[in-house]
Amino acid sequence: MNQHSFKELLSLFEEKFNIPHFPKQPETLYNASQYLLTLGGKRIRPVICLMAYELVGHINADALEVASAIELFHNFTLIHDDIMDKAPLRRGQPTVHVKYGESTALLAGDVMLVAAYDCLRKTGIQFLPQVLEIFNKTAMQVCEGQQIDMDLARMDPSTEKNENVYFDQYVNMIELKTSVLLAASMQLGLLLGGASLGNQQHAYQFGRNLGIAFQVQDDYLDAFGDPEKFGKKPGGDIIANKKTFLLIQAMNVCSPSQLEELQVLLKGNSDDKVERVLKIYEACKVKEWAKELKANYMSKAMAHLEDIAVLSARKKPLEELAHYLLDREM
Amino acid sequence: MNQHSFKELLSLFEEKFNIPHFPKQPETLYNASQYLLTLGGKRIRPVICLMAYELVGHINADALEVASAIELFHNFTLIHDDIMDKAPLRRGQPTVHVKYGESTALLAGDVMLVAAYDCLRKTGIQFLPQVLEIFNKTAMQVCEGQQIDMDLARMDPSTEKNENVYFDQYVNMIELKTSVLLAASMQLGLLLGGASLGNQQHAYQFGRNLGIAFQVQDDYLDAFGDPEKFGKKPGGDIIANKKTFLLIQAMNVCSPSQLEELQVLLKGNSDDKVERVLKIYEACKVKEWAKELKANYMSKAMAHLEDIAVLSARKKPLEELAHYLLDREM
Repeated sequence: MNQHSFKELLSLFEEKFNIPHFPKQPETLYNASQYLLTLGGKRIRPVICLMAYELVGHINADALEVASAIELFHNFTLIHDDIMDKAPLRRGQPTVHVKYGESTALLAGDVMLVAAYDCLRKTGIQFLPQVLEIFNKTAMQVCEGQQIDMDLARMDPSTEKNENVYFDQYVNMIELKTSVLLAASMQLGLLLGGASLGNQQHAYQFGRNLGIAFQVQDDYLDAFGDPEKFGKKPGGDIIANKKTFLLIQAMNVCSPSQLEELQVLLKGNSDDKVERVLKIYEACKVKEWAKELKANYMSKAMAHLEDIAVLSARKKPLEELAHYLLDREM
Repeated sequence: MNQHSFKELLSLFEEKFNIPHFPKQPETLYNASQYLLTLGGKRIRPVICLMAYELVGHINADALEVASAIELFHNFTLIHDDIMDKAPLRRGQPTVHVKYGESTALLAGDVMLVAAYDCLRKTGIQFLPQVLEIFNKTAMQVCEGQQIDMDLARMDPSTEKNENVYFDQYVNMIELKTSVLLAASMQLGLLLGGASLGNQQHAYQFGRNLGIAFQVQDDYLDAFGDPEKFGKKPGGDIIANKKTFLLIQAMNVCSPSQLEELQVLLKGNSDDKVERVLKIYEACKVKEWAKELKANYMSKAMAHLEDIAVLSARKKPLEELAHYLLDREM
């Protein structure tokens, strides 16, 4: 049984996924949906689903349908999240609502979700109820994550009575908004391949922990990334006052005077804002803490991958992908 | 085999449907979803699905799950449509986005759609792929209908080169936005009851034609309804410059001078707007035309009901419902 590399699975997936998912008419609606899909994307979730599937089976039509459903669902969340966040750009291009208006973007997201379910419908009937159960649970959780993200944005972590509560809520939000879809992609791959529930659960936990580690890395790179490799000036999150693992940790451990300085910095937009916040991060050893946090989640992920009962050799592509995602500097 | 009345099926349905469809947390999200459901509604679609089912079978759990999915889907469209239409009120109460904000309303709609699919998931596996196929097709069409409705709102029917094209587009929009869900509710009922595809198609066409007739009646009552029975002053659509069957017909058949008058009236908001538009409707015999149009769709619907191959006696509840909906004066 031959396994494929990420690149090979990606092109296998793209070949199927690039066939239009929508009718031509009314084009005022479907052009908007198709637009986002043609902007590309890394397709990590569908490919990880195919990789999980290849732990136990040969890629077949079922696996490609479920992978497509996952990618369509992901794009549905992007369209709606961008409306809520009033984001101007996505994948370097105008967001759907900027290009087509908010009402059409809302509908373009809705039909994308229906299209995702229409891929799931084509799954082999022996798996369909379980596939739907996992997919529905995950879909609800991702929406919950977006709501909690908006709720947290309204909270001021420095005035919360117990900062650990805030940290836990943040991790919970990241899990829901980001990790569970990666986790479900893994689980669905194994389910379709006929793996046992126990193995499916290890796959799920691998994806879940990988997803959190990935977010830590994301936050880390935005603050500490090498501008040459990262491709943009670090500090975007700091300028945007985004709550990140780093900011929450800094507020959690810094001295009262540092906290005061941070709060003043966050309220303003001085030229030296990034520089001064980074200085506080440094004083609070946030960089080292984040590296350790990432390593913790990563090792949990790897332990679950190890526990999936297939030959170690078969897990190579997933191991490589995990390291590629987590050691990246861009 | 005993059949139930509309009222009996409604209470059977409500008993199941009133169990909360969402988890408690995060309540910032799920309170918004549950809010709309508790405002009630006529529940015509799920009950008509159960009535269709009772043409051939005893109500069972499958039928109730699919009926619930239909009602959840309908409520999903209400939440999102109200955002797009900036509607302040729904069922006499503040709309979800007015009460909870647009972002939460958007998500509350999204989770409502997922909840609908989670009801479908519980359908007997022998029907699940077909149920999903009909449901997905219908869901796409309803979204298309909303988009076409928005597109038509931007067009000026009086300046279209061919008014008949406009009329056809309007009927098409009503079919997609309103009728296909009623049609699918009928078809799904028969499908679950084990009826043949031919009978399912007659059920679908019954629902589709009934839906259009229903919309004609809606437009009719808004203009010509008896204020005492209708419960509100007629002319709401005229004041809001809403495109209706009546306005399109009037523009289609009126004289150039009447057309000019109509256009002036539509642009303004004079005190005698309703009165004067109604006068043009009267001169153009729009009232009689609408009655005939409704009767045409109604008789098509009834012919399809007749063609469903079950004993005529079993069709009584559906016949009664159709007459109740179409002869209503409120």
